[in-house]
Amino acid sequence: MIAVLRLGHRIDRDKRTTTHVGLVARAFGADKIFITTKDEKLEETLKKITDKFGGSLKIATGVNYRELIKRWDGKVIHLTMYGEPIESVLPKIPKSNDLLVVVGAEKVPREIYELADYNIAIGNQPHSEIAALAVFLDRYLGGKGLKKKFDGDVKIIPCKRGKRVVVNTKRQSLQ
Amino acid sequence: MIAVLRLGHRIDRDKRTTTHVGLVARAFGADKIFITTKDEKLEETLKKITDKFGGSLKIATGVNYRELIKRWDGKVIHLTMYGEPIESVLPKIPKSNDLLVVVGAEKVPREIYELADYNIAIGNQPHSEIAALAVFLDRYLGGKGLKKKFDGDVKIIPCKRGKRVVVNTKRQSLQ
Repeated sequence: MIAVLRLGHRIDRDKRTTTHVGLVARAFGADKIFITTKDEKLEETLKKITDKFGGSLKIATGVNYRELIKRWDGKVIHLTMYGEPIESVLPKIPKSNDLLVVVGAEKVPREIYELADYNIAIGNQPHSEIAALAVFLDRYLGGKGLKKKFDGDVKIIPCKRGKRVVVNTKRQSLQ
Repeated sequence: MIAVLRLGHRIDRDKRTTTHVGLVARAFGADKIFITTKDEKLEETLKKITDKFGGSLKIATGVNYRELIKRWDGKVIHLTMYGEPIESVLPKIPKSNDLLVVVGAEKVPREIYELADYNIAIGNQPHSEIAALAVFLDRYLGGKGLKKKFDGDVKIIPCKRGKRVVVNTKRQSLQ
Protein backbone atom coordinates (compact mmCIF):
# COMPACT_ATOMS: atom_id res chain seq x y z
CA MET A 1 0.00 0.00 0.00
CA ILE A 2 1.23 3.47 -0.87
CA ALA A 3 -0.06 6.62 0.79
CA VAL A 4 0.86 10.24 0.18
CA LEU A 5 0.98 12.88 2.89
CA ARG A 6 0.72 16.52 1.85
CA LEU A 7 2.07 18.87 4.54
CA GLY A 8 1.16 22.49 5.17
CA HIS A 9 -1.67 22.86 2.68
CA ARG A 10 -2.96 26.46 2.72
CA ILE A 11 -6.59 26.38 1.60
CA ASP A 12 -6.51 29.38 -0.73
CA ARG A 13 -2.94 29.52 -1.86
CA ASP A 14 -2.38 25.80 -2.41
CA LYS A 15 -5.81 24.89 -3.73
CA ARG A 16 -4.61 23.98 -7.19
CA THR A 17 -1.20 22.55 -6.33
CA THR A 18 -2.68 20.28 -3.64
CA THR A 19 -5.33 19.13 -6.12
CA HIS A 20 -2.48 18.27 -8.50
CA VAL A 21 -0.74 16.36 -5.70
CA GLY A 22 -3.93 14.37 -5.05
CA LEU A 23 -4.51 13.61 -8.72
CA VAL A 24 -0.91 12.56 -9.20
CA ALA A 25 -1.15 10.29 -6.16
CA ARG A 26 -4.21 8.62 -7.71
CA ALA A 27 -2.95 8.42 -11.30
CA PHE A 28 0.54 7.17 -10.43
CA GLY A 29 -0.58 4.29 -8.24
CA ALA A 30 -1.03 5.52 -4.66
CA ASP A 31 -3.98 4.27 -2.60
CA LYS A 32 -4.47 7.11 -0.13
CA ILE A 33 -3.89 10.81 0.21
CA PHE A 34 -3.61 12.52 3.59
CA ILE A 35 -3.68 16.32 3.81
CA THR A 36 -2.80 18.09 7.05
CA THR A 37 -5.33 20.92 6.72
CA LYS A 38 -9.08 20.21 6.91
CA ASP A 39 -10.48 21.17 3.50
CA GLU A 40 -13.87 19.77 2.53
CA LYS A 41 -13.91 21.44 -0.84
CA LEU A 42 -10.64 19.78 -1.80
CA GLU A 43 -11.97 16.41 -0.60
CA GLU A 44 -14.99 16.94 -2.82
CA THR A 45 -12.89 17.89 -5.86
CA LEU A 46 -10.76 14.75 -5.55
CA LYS A 47 -13.79 12.57 -4.81
CA LYS A 48 -15.55 13.83 -7.93
CA ILE A 49 -12.63 12.81 -10.14
CA THR A 50 -12.46 9.40 -8.48
CA ASP A 51 -16.22 8.89 -8.87
CA LYS A 52 -15.99 9.76 -12.55
CA PHE A 53 -12.74 8.12 -13.61
CA GLY A 54 -12.72 5.23 -11.17
CA GLY A 55 -10.28 3.73 -8.73
CA SER A 56 -10.46 3.68 -4.97
CA LEU A 57 -8.29 6.56 -3.80
CA LYS A 58 -8.97 7.27 -0.13
CA ILE A 59 -8.87 10.92 0.89
CA ALA A 60 -8.45 12.33 4.38
CA THR A 61 -7.92 15.98 5.28
CA GLY A 62 -7.22 17.55 8.67
CA VAL A 63 -4.68 14.86 9.51
CA ASN A 64 -2.12 15.23 12.32
CA TYR A 65 1.13 14.47 10.52
CA ARG A 66 3.13 13.68 13.63
CA GLU A 67 0.69 11.03 14.79
CA LEU A 68 0.31 9.59 11.31
CA ILE A 69 4.06 9.28 10.79
CA LYS A 70 4.71 7.89 14.27
CA ARG A 71 2.01 5.24 13.89
CA TRP A 72 2.92 4.40 10.31
CA ASP A 73 3.66 0.71 9.97
CA GLY A 74 6.00 0.89 7.02
CA LYS A 75 8.62 3.19 5.55
CA VAL A 76 8.35 6.96 5.48
CA ILE A 77 9.85 8.72 2.45
CA HIS A 78 10.25 12.48 2.50
CA LEU A 79 10.77 14.07 -0.90
CA THR A 80 13.03 17.10 -0.62
CA MET A 81 15.62 18.77 -2.82
CA TYR A 82 18.00 18.59 0.18
CA GLY A 83 17.90 14.80 0.34
CA GLU A 84 19.97 12.00 -1.13
CA PRO A 85 19.67 11.27 -4.85
CA ILE A 86 16.81 8.96 -5.75
CA GLU A 87 19.19 6.78 -7.80
CA SER A 88 21.16 5.81 -4.72
CA VAL A 89 18.23 5.42 -2.29
CA LEU A 90 15.71 3.61 -4.46
CA PRO A 91 17.47 0.22 -4.35
CA LYS A 92 17.50 0.38 -0.52
CA ILE A 93 13.74 0.78 -0.07
CA PRO A 94 12.20 -2.59 0.74
CA LYS A 95 9.39 -3.38 -1.72
CA SER A 96 7.43 -5.36 0.85
CA ASN A 97 6.71 -2.44 3.18
CA ASP A 98 3.84 0.01 3.05
CA LEU A 99 5.06 3.41 1.97
CA LEU A 100 4.12 6.88 3.17
CA VAL A 101 5.44 9.49 0.74
CA VAL A 102 5.62 12.95 2.32
CA VAL A 103 5.63 16.16 0.28
CA GLY A 104 5.56 19.69 1.61
CA ALA A 105 3.93 22.88 0.44
CA GLU A 106 6.21 25.76 1.39
CA LYS A 107 8.37 25.31 4.47
CA VAL A 108 8.61 21.79 5.85
CA PRO A 109 8.99 21.43 9.66
CA ARG A 110 12.53 20.45 10.65
CA GLU A 111 11.38 17.31 12.46
CA ILE A 112 10.17 15.74 9.20
CA TYR A 113 13.80 15.25 8.16
CA GLU A 114 14.28 13.25 11.38
CA LEU A 115 10.98 11.37 11.33
CA ALA A 116 11.45 10.13 7.77
CA ASP A 117 13.27 6.88 7.06
CA TYR A 118 14.63 8.39 3.86
CA ASN A 119 14.98 11.98 2.68
CA ILE A 120 15.05 11.66 -1.08
CA ALA A 121 15.90 14.28 -3.68
CA ILE A 122 14.45 14.10 -7.18
CA GLY A 123 17.39 16.18 -8.28
CA ASN A 124 18.92 18.81 -5.98
CA GLN A 125 17.35 21.74 -7.81
CA PRO A 126 14.20 23.60 -6.79
CA HIS A 127 11.20 22.50 -8.82
CA SER A 128 7.84 21.12 -7.74
CA GLU A 129 6.49 18.69 -5.17
CA ILE A 130 3.97 17.61 -7.82
CA ALA A 131 6.79 16.66 -10.18
CA ALA A 132 8.81 15.06 -7.39
CA LEU A 133 5.88 12.86 -6.36
CA ALA A 134 5.14 11.80 -9.94
CA VAL A 135 8.74 10.91 -10.75
CA PHE A 136 9.22 9.12 -7.43
CA LEU A 137 6.12 6.96 -7.93
CA ASP A 138 6.95 6.38 -11.60
CA ARG A 139 10.42 5.15 -10.76
CA TYR A 140 9.49 3.28 -7.58
CA LEU A 141 6.76 1.34 -9.39
CA GLY A 142 8.87 0.94 -12.52
CA GLY A 143 6.19 2.60 -14.65
CA LYS A 144 3.50 0.17 -13.45
CA GLY A 145 1.60 2.84 -11.52
CA LEU A 146 0.54 4.51 -14.76
CA LYS A 147 -0.75 1.22 -16.14
CA LYS A 148 -3.17 0.65 -13.27
CA LYS A 149 -6.75 -0.09 -14.40
CA PHE A 150 -9.31 2.30 -12.93
CA ASP A 151 -12.56 0.95 -14.33
CA GLY A 152 -14.43 4.25 -14.06
CA ASP A 153 -17.63 5.39 -15.72
CA VAL A 154 -15.56 7.64 -17.93
CA LYS A 155 -12.73 6.04 -19.84
CA ILE A 156 -10.26 7.70 -22.17
CA ILE A 157 -9.25 5.71 -25.21
CA PRO A 158 -5.69 6.59 -26.29
CA CYS A 159 -5.54 8.08 -29.78
CA LYS A 160 -3.17 9.80 -32.18
CA ARG A 161 -5.25 12.99 -32.64
CA GLY A 162 -8.14 14.52 -30.75
CA LYS A 163 -10.16 12.94 -27.96
CA ARG A 164 -11.88 9.59 -27.59
CA VAL A 165 -13.95 9.17 -24.45
CA VAL A 166 -16.28 6.32 -23.55
CA VAL A 167 -18.96 7.03 -20.96
CA ASN A 168 -20.67 4.16 -19.21
CA THR A 169 -24.10 5.74 -18.88
CA LYS A 170 -25.76 2.46 -17.92
CA ARG A 171 -23.72 2.16 -14.79
CA GLN A 172 -24.25 5.83 -14.00
CA SER A 173 -28.02 5.50 -14.26
CA LEU A 174 -28.02 2.46 -11.98
CA GLN A 175 -26.40 4.36 -9.17
CA MET B 1 17.77 21.37 -27.58
CA ILE B 2 14.58 20.95 -25.63
CA ALA B 3 12.03 23.72 -25.20
CA VAL B 4 8.76 23.74 -23.30
CA LEU B 5 5.67 25.66 -24.38
CA ARG B 6 3.06 26.47 -21.75
CA LEU B 7 -0.32 27.26 -23.32
CA GLY B 8 -3.12 29.36 -21.90
CA HIS B 9 -1.39 30.71 -18.80
CA ARG B 10 -3.83 32.86 -16.80
CA ILE B 11 -1.77 35.36 -14.82
CA ASP B 12 -3.62 35.11 -11.51
CA ARG B 13 -5.04 31.63 -11.57
CA ASP B 14 -2.01 29.81 -12.99
CA LYS B 15 0.72 31.83 -11.27
CA ARG B 16 1.95 28.95 -9.16
CA THR B 17 1.35 26.08 -11.57
CA THR B 18 3.12 27.89 -14.42
CA THR B 19 6.03 28.62 -12.08
CA HIS B 20 6.15 24.88 -11.34
CA VAL B 21 6.11 24.16 -15.09
CA GLY B 22 9.05 26.55 -15.59
CA LEU B 23 11.05 25.12 -12.71
CA VAL B 24 10.42 21.57 -13.86
CA ALA B 25 11.53 22.50 -17.38
CA ARG B 26 14.78 23.86 -15.94
CA ALA B 27 15.45 21.10 -13.40
CA PHE B 28 14.64 18.21 -15.76
CA GLY B 29 16.90 19.31 -18.58
CA ALA B 30 15.01 21.71 -20.87
CA ASP B 31 16.79 24.76 -22.28
CA LYS B 32 13.91 27.14 -22.88
CA ILE B 33 10.43 27.89 -21.65
CA PHE B 34 7.87 29.72 -23.76
CA ILE B 35 4.65 31.00 -22.18
CA THR B 36 1.81 32.27 -24.32
CA THR B 37 0.70 35.07 -21.98
CA LYS B 38 2.94 38.08 -21.36
CA ASP B 39 3.81 37.97 -17.65
CA GLU B 40 6.83 39.95 -16.49
CA LYS B 41 6.45 38.92 -12.87
CA LEU B 42 6.62 35.27 -13.81
CA GLU B 43 9.70 35.93 -15.97
CA GLU B 44 11.30 37.61 -12.97
CA THR B 45 10.46 34.72 -10.62
CA LEU B 46 12.01 32.17 -12.95
CA LYS B 47 15.01 34.38 -13.68
CA LYS B 48 15.69 34.80 -9.95
CA ILE B 49 15.86 31.04 -9.45
CA THR B 50 18.15 30.65 -12.46
CA ASP B 51 20.42 33.47 -11.24
CA LYS B 52 20.67 31.85 -7.83
CA PHE B 53 20.88 28.16 -8.68
CA GLY B 54 22.56 28.39 -12.07
CA GLY B 55 21.97 27.05 -15.53
CA SER B 56 20.97 28.92 -18.63
CA LEU B 57 17.21 28.49 -18.93
CA LYS B 58 15.84 30.96 -21.47
CA ILE B 59 12.43 32.42 -20.67
CA ALA B 60 10.01 34.08 -23.07
CA THR B 61 6.44 35.12 -22.31
CA GLY B 62 3.79 36.55 -24.62
CA VAL B 63 4.64 34.02 -27.32
CA ASN B 64 2.31 33.28 -30.25
CA TYR B 65 1.99 29.51 -30.06
CA ARG B 66 0.81 29.03 -33.62
CA GLU B 67 3.81 30.83 -35.11
CA LEU B 68 6.22 29.12 -32.73
CA ILE B 69 4.93 25.65 -33.56
CA LYS B 70 4.76 26.30 -37.30
CA ARG B 71 8.31 27.62 -37.40
CA TRP B 72 9.68 24.96 -35.06
CA ASP B 73 12.53 23.11 -36.72
CA GLY B 74 12.19 19.84 -34.87
CA LYS B 75 9.51 17.64 -33.35
CA VAL B 76 6.49 18.93 -31.46
CA ILE B 77 5.24 16.80 -28.58
CA HIS B 78 1.89 17.59 -27.00
CA LEU B 79 1.35 16.05 -23.58
CA THR B 80 -2.32 15.18 -23.09
CA MET B 81 -4.25 12.49 -21.27
CA TYR B 82 -6.08 11.82 -24.55
CA GLY B 83 -2.90 10.87 -26.41
CA GLU B 84 -1.06 7.65 -27.09
CA PRO B 85 0.80 5.96 -24.23
CA ILE B 86 4.32 7.27 -23.67
CA GLU B 87 5.66 3.70 -23.70
CA SER B 88 4.65 3.17 -27.32
CA VAL B 89 5.59 6.64 -28.66
CA LEU B 90 8.91 7.21 -26.90
CA PRO B 91 10.92 4.82 -29.10
CA LYS B 92 9.61 6.60 -32.22
CA ILE B 93 10.86 10.06 -31.30
CA PRO B 94 14.17 10.74 -33.06
CA LYS B 95 16.84 11.75 -30.54
CA SER B 96 18.62 13.98 -33.02
CA ASN B 97 15.80 16.51 -33.39
CA ASP B 98 15.10 19.56 -31.30
CA LEU B 99 12.02 19.04 -29.19
CA LEU B 100 9.17 21.39 -28.33
CA VAL B 101 7.12 19.94 -25.48
CA VAL B 102 3.67 21.52 -25.25
CA VAL B 103 1.59 21.52 -22.06
CA GLY B 104 -1.74 23.22 -21.53
CA ALA B 105 -3.31 24.98 -18.59
CA GLU B 106 -7.05 24.35 -18.75
CA LYS B 107 -8.57 23.85 -22.18
CA VAL B 108 -6.16 23.24 -25.02
CA PRO B 109 -7.17 24.56 -28.48
CA ARG B 110 -8.25 21.77 -30.80
CA GLU B 111 -5.64 22.65 -33.42
CA ILE B 112 -2.80 21.70 -31.08
CA TYR B 113 -3.74 18.04 -31.52
CA GLU B 114 -3.25 18.54 -35.27
CA LEU B 115 -0.15 20.73 -35.12
CA ALA B 116 1.73 18.31 -32.85
CA ASP B 117 3.84 15.52 -34.30
CA TYR B 118 2.91 13.34 -31.34
CA ASN B 119 0.09 13.57 -28.79
CA ILE B 120 1.45 11.68 -25.83
CA ALA B 121 -0.35 10.54 -22.69
CA ILE B 122 1.51 10.08 -19.43
CA GLY B 123 -1.25 7.73 -18.41
CA ASN B 124 -4.84 8.28 -19.58
CA GLN B 125 -6.04 9.61 -16.26
CA PRO B 126 -6.46 13.25 -15.29
CA HIS B 127 -3.54 14.50 -13.19
CA SER B 128 -1.18 17.41 -13.75
CA GLU B 129 0.71 19.02 -16.60
CA ILE B 130 3.56 19.59 -14.14
CA ALA B 131 3.77 15.87 -13.45
CA ALA B 132 3.35 14.99 -17.12
CA LEU B 133 6.22 17.28 -18.12
CA ALA B 134 8.51 15.93 -15.40
CA VAL B 135 7.86 12.28 -16.21
CA PHE B 136 8.13 12.88 -19.94
CA LEU B 137 11.53 14.62 -19.61
CA ASP B 138 12.71 12.08 -17.05
CA ARG B 139 11.90 9.18 -19.35
CA TYR B 140 12.95 10.88 -22.60
CA LEU B 141 16.37 11.78 -21.17
CA GLY B 142 16.68 8.45 -19.36
CA GLY B 143 17.15 10.20 -16.01
CA LYS B 144 20.06 12.29 -17.34
CA GLY B 145 18.13 15.57 -17.15
CA LEU B 146 18.16 15.44 -13.36
CA LYS B 147 21.93 14.94 -13.34
CA LYS B 148 22.67 18.12 -15.28
CA LYS B 149 25.26 20.38 -13.60
CA PHE B 150 23.98 23.89 -12.96
CA ASP B 151 27.01 25.59 -11.43
CA GLY B 152 25.02 28.24 -9.58
CA ASP B 153 26.03 30.48 -6.69
CA VAL B 154 23.86 28.38 -4.44
CA LYS B 155 24.47 24.66 -4.43
CA ILE B 156 22.65 22.00 -2.47
CA ILE B 157 24.77 19.16 -1.16
CA PRO B 158 22.73 15.96 -0.91
CA CYS B 159 22.46 14.64 2.66
CA LYS B 160 20.64 12.05 4.75
CA ARG B 161 19.05 14.50 7.23
CA GLY B 162 18.51 18.26 7.21
CA LYS B 163 19.93 20.76 4.75
CA ARG B 164 23.41 21.40 3.41
CA VAL B 165 23.78 24.45 1.23
CA VAL B 166 26.97 25.99 -0.15
CA VAL B 167 26.82 29.65 -1.16
CA ASN B 168 29.50 31.05 -3.42
CA THR B 169 29.66 34.54 -1.88
CA LYS B 170 32.90 35.40 -3.69
CA ARG B 171 31.29 35.08 -7.07
CA GLN B 172 28.22 36.96 -5.87
CA SER B 173 30.32 39.90 -4.62
CA LEU B 174 32.16 40.10 -7.92
CA GLN B 175 28.97 40.68 -9.83
